[in-house]
Amino acid sequence: MKNSVIYAFILCFMGVATSQTLKSPNGELEMQFSVKENGTPTYSLTYKNQAVIKSSALGFSLKNEEDLLNDFTVSGIDETSYDETWEPVWGEQKEIRNHYNEMAVNLLQKGTNREVIIRFRLFDDGLGFRYEFPQQKNLGHFVIEDEKTEFAMTGDHTAFWIPGDYDTQEYDYTESKLSAIRGLMEGSITENVSQTSFSPTGVQTTLMMKTDDGLYINLHEAALVNYPVMHLNLDDENFVFESWLTPNLEGDKAYMIAPSITPWRTIIVSDDARDILASKMIYNLNEPSKIDDTSWIKPMKYVGVWWEMITGKSTWSYTNDFTAVKLGETDYESATPNGTHGATTEHVKEYIDFAAENGFDGVLVEGWNVGWEDWFGHSKDYVFDFVTPYPDFDVKEIQDYAESKGVEMIMHHETSASVRNYERHLDTAYQFMKEYGYNAVKSGYVGDILPRGENHYSQWLVNHYLYAVKEAADYGIMVNAHEAVRPTGLARTWPNLIANESARGTEYQAFGGSKPNHVTVLPFTRLIGGPMDYTPGIFEMDLSKLNPENNSHVNSTIANQLALYVTMYSPLQMAADLPANYKRFPDAFQFIKDVALDWDESIYLEAEPGDYVTVARKEKGSDNWFLGNVNGETARTSKIKFDFLDKGQKYIATIYSDAKDAHYKTNPQAYEIRKVVVDNKSKLSQFSAPGGGYAISIIPAEKSETKGMKKL
Amino acid sequence: MKNSVIYAFILCFMGVATSQTLKSPNGELEMQFSVKENGTPTYSLTYKNQAVIKSSALGFSLKNEEDLLNDFTVSGIDETSYDETWEPVWGEQKEIRNHYNEMAVNLLQKGTNREVIIRFRLFDDGLGFRYEFPQQKNLGHFVIEDEKTEFAMTGDHTAFWIPGDYDTQEYDYTESKLSAIRGLMEGSITENVSQTSFSPTGVQTTLMMKTDDGLYINLHEAALVNYPVMHLNLDDENFVFESWLTPNLEGDKAYMIAPSITPWRTIIVSDDARDILASKMIYNLNEPSKIDDTSWIKPMKYVGVWWEMITGKSTWSYTNDFTAVKLGETDYESATPNGTHGATTEHVKEYIDFAAENGFDGVLVEGWNVGWEDWFGHSKDYVFDFVTPYPDFDVKEIQDYAESKGVEMIMHHETSASVRNYERHLDTAYQFMKEYGYNAVKSGYVGDILPRGENHYSQWLVNHYLYAVKEAADYGIMVNAHEAVRPTGLARTWPNLIANESARGTEYQAFGGSKPNHVTVLPFTRLIGGPMDYTPGIFEMDLSKLNPENNSHVNSTIANQLALYVTMYSPLQMAADLPANYKRFPDAFQFIKDVALDWDESIYLEAEPGDYVTVARKEKGSDNWFLGNVNGETARTSKIKFDFLDKGQKYIATIYSDAKDAHYKTNPQAYEIRKVVVDNKSKLSQFSAPGGGYAISIIPAEKSETKGMKKL
Repeated sequence: MKNSVIYAFILCFMGVATSQTLKSPNGELEMQFSVKENGTPTYSLTYKNQAVIKSSALGFSLKNEEDLLNDFTVSGIDETSYDETWEPVWGEQKEIRNHYNEMAVNLLQKGTNREVIIRFRLFDDGLGFRYEFPQQKNLGHFVIEDEKTEFAMTGDHTAFWIPGDYDTQEYDYTESKLSAIRGLMEGSITENVSQTSFSPTGVQTTLMMKTDDGLYINLHEAALVNYPVMHLNLDDENFVFESWLTPNLEGDKAYMIAPSITPWRTIIVSDDARDILASKMIYNLNEPSKIDDTSWIKPMKYVGVWWEMITGKSTWSYTNDFTAVKLGETDYESATPNGTHGATTEHVKEYIDFAAENGFDGVLVEGWNVGWEDWFGHSKDYVFDFVTPYPDFDVKEIQDYAESKGVEMIMHHETSASVRNYERHLDTAYQFMKEYGYNAVKSGYVGDILPRGENHYSQWLVNHYLYAVKEAADYGIMVNAHEAVRPTGLARTWPNLIANESARGTEYQAFGGSKPNHVTVLPFTRLIGGPMDYTPGIFEMDLSKLNPENNSHVNSTIANQLALYVTMYSPLQMAADLPANYKRFPDAFQFIKDVALDWDESIYLEAEPGDYVTVARKEKGSDNWFLGNVNGETARTSKIKFDFLDKGQKYIATIYSDAKDAHYKTNPQAYEIRKVVVDNKSKLSQFSAPGGGYAISIIPAEKSETKGMKKL
Repeated sequence: MKNSVIYAFILCFMGVATSQTLKSPNGELEMQFSVKENGTPTYSLTYKNQAVIKSSALGFSLKNEEDLLNDFTVSGIDETSYDETWEPVWGEQKEIRNHYNEMAVNLLQKGTNREVIIRFRLFDDGLGFRYEFPQQKNLGHFVIEDEKTEFAMTGDHTAFWIPGDYDTQEYDYTESKLSAIRGLMEGSITENVSQTSFSPTGVQTTLMMKTDDGLYINLHEAALVNYPVMHLNLDDENFVFESWLTPNLEGDKAYMIAPSITPWRTIIVSDDARDILASKMIYNLNEPSKIDDTSWIKPMKYVGVWWEMITGKSTWSYTNDFTAVKLGETDYESATPNGTHGATTEHVKEYIDFAAENGFDGVLVEGWNVGWEDWFGHSKDYVFDFVTPYPDFDVKEIQDYAESKGVEMIMHHETSASVRNYERHLDTAYQFMKEYGYNAVKSGYVGDILPRGENHYSQWLVNHYLYAVKEAADYGIMVNAHEAVRPTGLARTWPNLIANESARGTEYQAFGGSKPNHVTVLPFTRLIGGPMDYTPGIFEMDLSKLNPENNSHVNSTIANQLALYVTMYSPLQMAADLPANYKRFPDAFQFIKDVALDWDESIYLEAEPGDYVTVARKEKGSDNWFLGNVNGETARTSKIKFDFLDKGQKYIATIYSDAKDAHYKTNPQAYEIRKVVVDNKSKLSQFSAPGGGYAISIIPAEKSETKGMKKL
């Protein structure tokens, strides 16, 4: 931390329900707080004097006691300024500036003599605010029935939304006017193995919007700890969103004990879509790292025994003998192997060889442990033990082999959403990992939650996911949790949370396909809270070639797949396709081998949600740059400047782009690769096909190396 | 195990729905199995040709699939005989004979091609049967909606019952005709901090009954593992009980996976009430010990910092500063002590001194760990961490002091029914215990269960309690679980489960009092499944002398309290009263110091549920005998013979009895102690007051010792 400057002063309270203004450091954002006549606190927000959030109410209804909605008076206001720069353990940039003006409004509910503080932090890129319940006589334990935070929009904006759901975010995004959400809801709720929608106008955060005036507004939350996930429910007559918390199994929202705080409610706003992507406000609203020694946390590029199961080419299960499995009782040793099991020692060694040959850090193996014959759909409690391998998976032999090749094995813990069972085995499972040299785990929460009736995004589960991450930190283990709650910047505090899924990932390309512009939306939504293990790198788009029974098509070009390693920021990147498919396209595969995982700098060059994202990133501790562009459904020519490069330096740029006749559906494997010389005056006009894109590696070069090479 | 003789043969199935008879080894019990015309399996039972159970249906209704109720045909019958003698780790007798004839009926449901086995074991003391679901193609996972096991009574028997309840057994027993249950139900449901009754004719097991013909019938279950507790719901027009399982939070009863088994349903029957008490059928229906080395499991007599809190004389909590506590955040170090905290280092040392001086094995201390200011009633998740002591409780100093005095400290884990929290901390808590030399833990589950909506007796919790016991076994820790499920003989399999509460214990004498005949019923009900930590030994019955605000009266005489150490069999026995009260009655206290904990032999001399129980027990590895009589509400003269003593041997019997004018209410402290010489020809005619009783120690004596001493 450096340049930490803090100014604080306390405003004298005027004694009347008046309004109070807070400005962002550059003055472009202005937040107004006021208390209505009935004592309801409200806020509003403007950007460059344009309304962003109209007057919006704040508060809670409580269970079995008086609500915290009105009858409030302001008993004091504290204002502070803060400016620091901090270094993330991994990330899009080496340093992050955390610069805001803060206003903490102390509210007293007159009738009940209860206190609530609403803390606003106004950054140049947006507003965060949270509720705080200080220690006090008249508020100890309480149960939140509903949070009544409003976000009153100024009009019928265009939104990029997925259906509100207590159990999954694995939906394609719908782009529509707010007024059209209701009509489009039913069609947007596609099938998922665990899902609970709740309202015809309920949507999830991160919610990305664009106004008719060209303002970009992004709603989310930060630092979600021991509190349910916030959804947004739209009053589509007035275009007012209200917070809609995920209930527990009894319908209550949150069990609270004062002193406590809620997560931050966040509004990122700009008239330039690139600023939304560049915003680090969510991380800034989280606490600094609680892990002192972070030297063991390392970005990883990996391959894995996974896509072959996802596509149906091989299986997680070892045998077809059992209709049901009881761990510890079912006899695997004498079972007949089904011949399709993916995680065999021999096959895993092939992946280790491939990883070692191509410079990958790790190999993930799913389906290595007993139980997969009966792991899903029966609300089964003791579904996995996380330590017993199948008879054909030799943990020790594999570990020794991987070590000899300089490759790390990545553990897989599918919990089948049986959370008590996972917590019971967590210590033993982590100990097992360390014993066999595993330093990272991919965990999964597929299916309906046990305890039955709980939801993936309720307080109980939110508490669990962080528990698993904290326990992992004690063991020096990195966590990549799938089907868990979507991130809210907690990786700043727990940087061993290196990735999440928590959105529609590449696997859906094998389950019928995702929209071709999906990856132009995700950076504006899912990635706002933290990195995604999107598992890109698919080269064979016709999945019937892997499994004749799979008719899915991957809606993406190869060039688009390459660009994802740059556009979808994550310290954990998979090359998801089969080694055999990479061997067919060694020139394109070269980019996956070359691309960096951690960055000193990131520059968003072009961005429009649903249409395109172009970003250039400078490799950490290096002068190499990597650039990616992903494109939506319409062919487009991207025009970028290389003025971010060092002046006077020549670079060799290898451009992996769509061929002119490329198309995500009809011609996805048509790509071109060319090498050109670039410097900081170079400009590029580059075609991207529908569902396509391009990727560029930009490596500093000596003059001799560029000799005879074409300049861009 | 010795004299293990097994005969097995398979009966040829006759192909028609016929009936099949099974006799007990001595032929007095006869069970008849048959299948009704609609394919419903049924059983009936006679004792000495008297009907005990009339034809009663067997089966299940299932969720979302065809029931397992009818359409069955018998596909085979296996008959076996078994006779072995085994040695319990602790118990009422050195050896237990397990002798039965078995009939396993293989049933095939024709329409669904599903198989169920009903296994009957007929002992000389009763019948046990269970359902088994073998591994098969057409039955894997299934959910039991209801178990439909019937127990059809032959008439309007007298029953000793407590209200059916999903969360507590802490009720006084009501004695009534079956037909009177409905009318008496409301008045029988007294207040408890967590309770869920379900039917006006629903009662709990162990249910004790007596017919007008003088037959004693006892219904319970054995080996309750990963299945909900069975209650009994009475059709009070036909006097037919039907099993009523405890539901989970969604109303389902049990999640099952074939192959699996249910607990045993048990019917102990005799025309002599003493046989009910002497029966070891419940243990015999459980699996042998799964703990190989049981040398660390030792009966314990203990005192504790407990009754003073129960009576309100001191507090579990350390301070009155906090309205709510957040562990790890609340600052105890700077809190103001409330001056009433019981578990201070200094005070605990007084108990250690008292224990050492009087030969007790252990000292229990409650309220030693942070959190008690805010432990109850708020559905609080993180309520205790089980390792952080209060500032005035020095774990190390206390442990060192206890060790120097040859006394063991007993740990206390109140979970506040927050079960996830307990499981999360279980390993650390057990490790902490071993680090500080604790080998036994009293655990508690006060209040409503978390996960919210679960019940104390649902499958989820039944699974938890055994999990905690198994994990404890791994650490070499003995468990005494309060508010957990009532025992079903599992202590045979897990002998580190040294006791449970799971009934209305002595604490209720401080909460308004229990019925004076309560302890004459418990041996027929609660104790059938295993030992109870009843915490007897109260000498001061007027609790206002301990705490002026406590108006409770202990409905018992001192002689009755002494007898409980013999009549209420448990390897764990507390002397619950304050040391100061024992010091007032050193002669009576002598019996508590002398009485044994573990036995080679037990002889029930007199018994009538609700009226009296008299038992003589021979100390393990010794020739000492101890004898106890507890008496109900009416004064009575007990007449017993000492013919169980060794022939020719003289003994000194010290008789602790009620004075003639003793009475549980008006004169509870009136006792007499006399020493007499007895031999195996002696007879005793001994008065017991209402709510009274007597206790006798019988110690072999040399002739010289008995000189001049009066013979009985």
